[in-house]
Amino acid sequence: MTAPATTTDDSRRISVRYRIRPTAGPLDAATVDAFAQALALEQSVEVPHAAVRDPWVAENIVGRVEAVVPAADGSFEVTLRLAVATTGFDVAQTINMLFGNASLHPGVTLVDADIPPGLVARFPRPRFGIAGLRERTGARGRALTCAALKPQGLAPDALADIFRTFAEAGIDVVKDDHGLADQAYAPFAERVRACRRVAETVRRATGRAPLYAPSLVGGPRTLATHARIARDEGCEMVLIAPALVGMPVFAELVETLGVPVLAHPAYAGAARVETPFLLGSLFRLLGADATIYPNHGGRFALPPATCAAIAAAARAPRDDVPPILPVPAGGLTVERVPELLDFYGDDVMLLIGGSLLAAADPAARTREFVRRVHAGAAT
Amino acid sequence: MTAPATTTDDSRRISVRYRIRPTAGPLDAATVDAFAQALALEQSVEVPHAAVRDPWVAENIVGRVEAVVPAADGSFEVTLRLAVATTGFDVAQTINMLFGNASLHPGVTLVDADIPPGLVARFPRPRFGIAGLRERTGARGRALTCAALKPQGLAPDALADIFRTFAEAGIDVVKDDHGLADQAYAPFAERVRACRRVAETVRRATGRAPLYAPSLVGGPRTLATHARIARDEGCEMVLIAPALVGMPVFAELVETLGVPVLAHPAYAGAARVETPFLLGSLFRLLGADATIYPNHGGRFALPPATCAAIAAAARAPRDDVPPILPVPAGGLTVERVPELLDFYGDDVMLLIGGSLLAAADPAARTREFVRRVHAGAAT
Repeated sequence: MTAPATTTDDSRRISVRYRIRPTAGPLDAATVDAFAQALALEQSVEVPHAAVRDPWVAENIVGRVEAVVPAADGSFEVTLRLAVATTGFDVAQTINMLFGNASLHPGVTLVDADIPPGLVARFPRPRFGIAGLRERTGARGRALTCAALKPQGLAPDALADIFRTFAEAGIDVVKDDHGLADQAYAPFAERVRACRRVAETVRRATGRAPLYAPSLVGGPRTLATHARIARDEGCEMVLIAPALVGMPVFAELVETLGVPVLAHPAYAGAARVETPFLLGSLFRLLGADATIYPNHGGRFALPPATCAAIAAAARAPRDDVPPILPVPAGGLTVERVPELLDFYGDDVMLLIGGSLLAAADPAARTREFVRRVHAGAAT
Repeated sequence: MTAPATTTDDSRRISVRYRIRPTAGPLDAATVDAFAQALALEQSVEVPHAAVRDPWVAENIVGRVEAVVPAADGSFEVTLRLAVATTGFDVAQTINMLFGNASLHPGVTLVDADIPPGLVARFPRPRFGIAGLRERTGARGRALTCAALKPQGLAPDALADIFRTFAEAGIDVVKDDHGLADQAYAPFAERVRACRRVAETVRRATGRAPLYAPSLVGGPRTLATHARIARDEGCEMVLIAPALVGMPVFAELVETLGVPVLAHPAYAGAARVETPFLLGSLFRLLGADATIYPNHGGRFALPPATCAAIAAAARAPRDDVPPILPVPAGGLTVERVPELLDFYGDDVMLLIGGSLLAAADPAARTREFVRRVHAGAAT
């Protein structure tokens, strides 16, 4: 085993952890050591050692193996130290260096990366975070509530009716279903206008209305057009799936939006990257203010420990990056609210989607959701 | 098991195949049937059936299970039929509908999708393809050769020297290492200018020079800037990793480039999408003219059958999409050229990277690479 190295160039190297799983028979330590050395080349110079003829490149650019540690389940954890200089201080290139070619090895998972402050400072990072979302929703001393406009296929007026149900019940954030894009049956501009009109009507009647987060999906041109429409219509938040539109696009877009960003995990599970790092740490660095993920015990199979780790990555105190709201979702029900508040505490936004709309009386069900969250974990 | 359905609305539905693998104990048919129904909801309306109150939505938008077929290895293949209307005829939204939330299920892989012509027509598709690349390189009746500028860390002049070695040996396409971005030690503009200058010098001396494909990596702003520099410097090709920059960005970008595009698989292996569909069919639909993938027997572990399937997906005759060049790579050596030509035939571009540069005499090694490819499979 390679012993953990003690190095002093922390600001010039990224510490990256990978999990190496056996794909054809058990792994032995010597094989993994050799593989770790190959991975250090793959994720830096991408040539055999013999082709690195320049001593400056060998010293400053070639990746290094910091540690190889066996796990109880037969896998190994490999830590590499990759040169910050290779990232060119660019988001896309950083992801390339962390997992570009390594992703092509079926047995390799990206676990996490310790990115030095000088590189973190070049990422967008959240502009609002938990504090900004509490300020904008007025939700203090309790968890936040979120509901989703769906099913897709409905016309703008029908979606706006659902918005009204959620708004009148006192939901904090209403987001589009991530499947709502710019389809013929509910064009983006018409849908956003219809929902925002309802929001303002409810605000005049009751003094408050949910933040509305329409879903931005498409190539850069469409994203820019839809972001402008959302701004012109007064939307106070947007929903974007970073893995779907491309993480570098997401990072560039959030800096122009001026409103909090709710990250959706669509296509992100497609990545063989550990979800706490991807949906928690990385989406946070890229500028998400809240991050949706499939909760344990719902339609998806994330274990409770993984959900806790995603929430921890989203909320961990850091001097240089504000904490963001974890948003567990994916088949949650109103009955589970106390258990979820007990599990996550108050700095969370609970997202209940389909089960509100499937109820015999969606309005009553939504009011009950809001009541339980406002009452807190103790009830 | 659900019997294969006979439907007549082929132009209005996408047929999508998923593989469902057991993640916790063996799968039985009833469980998979129920899961397939849930997946059809997940990838369309994302609500329980009870929440679909609109008959038009139930008929035209809700996904349908077409077939559930058990495989010998204990997995199941599920075919869904998803409504074309839900894609809004947008690349990002199409990927969202194919694998947005489904990607969050650890046991689910996207195998492929049969996209109807009306939607294919809205994808960029290759503008050059195999025919265009043969025309631009002058390579006829034989396979093409490709080599890579590396290792990163070298200055522009040193990279240009390597370019000269490849150019004088008669390589058809020289691409940047995908790790070359816009780093301090080799800024994009300087590197491109230095290599293009060498290309023109060699062209004047010998009558021919390789196409040079610099690597474009970054957010949309950086991509646009670098594409402009590449065009201004006279680059006849570019290298882009669609999964890294974001597939919707790639699709939008290729339409503006005016030169053939070589797709790189960086970060694409991160997706739990079958490589023949992702690197072959989908990158082709998105506008790649040639697609790099890790070949069998090299540094990566793709089996020969998968490599053959990628090549088949890249080259399969289609009325509406030109064939593109498969580009096997990833640790190939000159010795393997006859075997590779035998395996792939002539419509292929062989990419040898590090092993040319690690040789005692890289120039001689590169000439031998070119000689063997020009000689063909029989020698």
